[in-house]
Amino acid sequence: MNWLACAHGGSRTGVVDLALSAVEDISGRGQATVINRGVRLDVANAAFVNAISSNVLDFDDTHLRTVIHPTVPVASAILALSEYIPVDGASFMHAFILGVEAECRVGNAMSPEHYHAGWHITSTCGVIGAAAACAKLLKLGPAETACALGMAASASGGLAEMLGSMTRMINMGNAARGGFHAAWYASKGITSSRRAFEAPKGFANAFSSRFDADELVKPGNDSWELSHNAYKPYPCGIVVHPIIDGCINLKARHSINVAEVREIRLKVHPLVVTVTGGSPEPDDELRAKVSAHHCAAVALIFGAAGVAEFGQDIVDDPVVSLTRRKVILEPDEGMPRDAAEVLVVLDSGDQLRERITHARGSLEIPLTDAEIEEKLRVLVKWGGSGSDTGNMIRTIWNLEAESDAGIIARL
Amino acid sequence: MNWLACAHGGSRTGVVDLALSAVEDISGRGQATVINRGVRLDVANAAFVNAISSNVLDFDDTHLRTVIHPTVPVASAILALSEYIPVDGASFMHAFILGVEAECRVGNAMSPEHYHAGWHITSTCGVIGAAAACAKLLKLGPAETACALGMAASASGGLAEMLGSMTRMINMGNAARGGFHAAWYASKGITSSRRAFEAPKGFANAFSSRFDADELVKPGNDSWELSHNAYKPYPCGIVVHPIIDGCINLKARHSINVAEVREIRLKVHPLVVTVTGGSPEPDDELRAKVSAHHCAAVALIFGAAGVAEFGQDIVDDPVVSLTRRKVILEPDEGMPRDAAEVLVVLDSGDQLRERITHARGSLEIPLTDAEIEEKLRVLVKWGGSGSDTGNMIRTIWNLEAESDAGIIARL
Repeated sequence: MNWLACAHGGSRTGVVDLALSAVEDISGRGQATVINRGVRLDVANAAFVNAISSNVLDFDDTHLRTVIHPTVPVASAILALSEYIPVDGASFMHAFILGVEAECRVGNAMSPEHYHAGWHITSTCGVIGAAAACAKLLKLGPAETACALGMAASASGGLAEMLGSMTRMINMGNAARGGFHAAWYASKGITSSRRAFEAPKGFANAFSSRFDADELVKPGNDSWELSHNAYKPYPCGIVVHPIIDGCINLKARHSINVAEVREIRLKVHPLVVTVTGGSPEPDDELRAKVSAHHCAAVALIFGAAGVAEFGQDIVDDPVVSLTRRKVILEPDEGMPRDAAEVLVVLDSGDQLRERITHARGSLEIPLTDAEIEEKLRVLVKWGGSGSDTGNMIRTIWNLEAESDAGIIARL
Repeated sequence: MNWLACAHGGSRTGVVDLALSAVEDISGRGQATVINRGVRLDVANAAFVNAISSNVLDFDDTHLRTVIHPTVPVASAILALSEYIPVDGASFMHAFILGVEAECRVGNAMSPEHYHAGWHITSTCGVIGAAAACAKLLKLGPAETACALGMAASASGGLAEMLGSMTRMINMGNAARGGFHAAWYASKGITSSRRAFEAPKGFANAFSSRFDADELVKPGNDSWELSHNAYKPYPCGIVVHPIIDGCINLKARHSINVAEVREIRLKVHPLVVTVTGGSPEPDDELRAKVSAHHCAAVALIFGAAGVAEFGQDIVDDPVVSLTRRKVILEPDEGMPRDAAEVLVVLDSGDQLRERITHARGSLEIPLTDAEIEEKLRVLVKWGGSGSDTGNMIRTIWNLEAESDAGIIARL
């Protein structure tokens, strides 16, 4: 539900226009749907574009321990494949859960060293998750599945330096496509080393100074990684969410008029300042999404921080700009990393204060099913799709009973 | 010439059959030729398969300092692209030289640490060379070219653990396709970080403990990397070539009958023993190609070590097997790494001795143009192609004057 919402919401953005125009010329046809674009490409290229659509808004899910965004590579690959081979809803869910488990466990085995070495972890691990999920749908046996995972490990890549550029999304597309390819090739009989991860010149040594293989094979039950996955209420970096919550709460409670605000003081952990303090005057959407100043300003002005509040018109708005300049970041070692204290000082001298211990969308206060349904409605509309969201929501909740998982794409 | 020879020779091997059957289902059509297979796929998938064909025999060229096989990713990508957009012969050669230069320089910057860390260097650097070459053909300006190289760096990967499996060739296919994709996306306006290599979370830090950026930008002239590229007379690891030379020379000079041979003593540098001593009784073609025992045996029996002498029937032949068991490797620190001393002891007690200082195909004794032409004739025939090799050879030598580089594929 959350992934499909993100894919619709992002489907008409500029980078998707560019990616689609690039692959349309060189793609096979008719196998799989590009969501909300009225085009069917081959499986690999459809997976590529849908991964870009579903990641571009920075609204997709987050596995908090690794900061992997697990659904994008896996769901993009298996939805495309499900339009090409027969896949029932229960098998789709099984493959999805398996893929997410695989990618997050590989991420656990080497976090945080792997990310610090310069790797874009959703890309490097996503290709493995996508391969695991596609291998399941292709009904590969153990030997073929090992080859699928081996080829995925050998196709893994993606640099963290790209996170501020369009290539962040290209990395997602490559992961979805590469994972499908690996499983597809294995299904045709292409083989790889059976020791792709653990061999001296294998994945573990190449990609991380530390690799704890126990993380790959520990028992399941309480440790399912999908249960540690968080869904965002705001389309921006998760670290700024407590600030947004605090400002929205104050706006709702006090009907604040920002013209009468003198200062907006944000007390947060120093790490939050490092990550979100670098763009006090953002000039585009991407930078606005990592700007505490912008997020606090729009939350206080509009009482909201949805996709609209990160649009170029809002980024350029003079009132928003004026309000951003009233924001003061106060690093405080005593603050937890996922907390924020917002102090609004009015021209009158009055002080309004709000403390957020855990943000909406955190594991402690997860979005409700109803909130994710609403997110779907908003983003389907934002993407300009005429799809019947009521039908979509019913179908997704009942997916396990559907005989054809490809129905998701036809919705 | 050498690359086209290898591509024909490998075009009917099992791994190419599998790769072609895998991508045919999911490819666009009609844009670019799969060499010697009577099929035209989209540019990306044609580049993928041709890279596999031209690498599978282990007969392609070698940049000795890095052990990159530079032509496969670059030529596979630009030949496919040259069938889709107008490219004249001179531009093709320019792009080819540029791509080889780019990939080998990136390899120089981080060798040998990069390989030792577990990376398959032809794959990791090949994607960058292919992107540079395709960017040239697409006439990208500096900013777009930087994005093409950035996307290639962020798509780079490939594990050295795969070198003994079919995924070695898949890595080559991924490099050719990924390099084309990166340049193609950049031509459509997709952007990347401009600091893909040097940024703290960029290529250099992620892929190697050492990265000497001066190697990327040093002046050209005498340092063109293509001039340090070697072409193989035998389809196997280059390190075993001096042994083959020595055995072929002895066979020619003494008309040796292996039934009368008691021992075959090979004195080589200890590193050669490490690399080629692990398969005294190989059971398949891939292992035979890294077996000093097999190479010495066939060279003494047949006076040759071409593709036929590594076929499964020869690997399984009882006389070959018996002869392999007569081989004794003698590591000697005093031997140069590219030398070998072969001592054949006959049942009569006679000793026949040959010392090779530099093998055929080394930079000191490179293959002549005529020898590479003959390699083309042999491999075109081996691949079962009915192509007119005389016409092929004339066209390639005159490529710079051709108005359409795509003619190479139509030959």
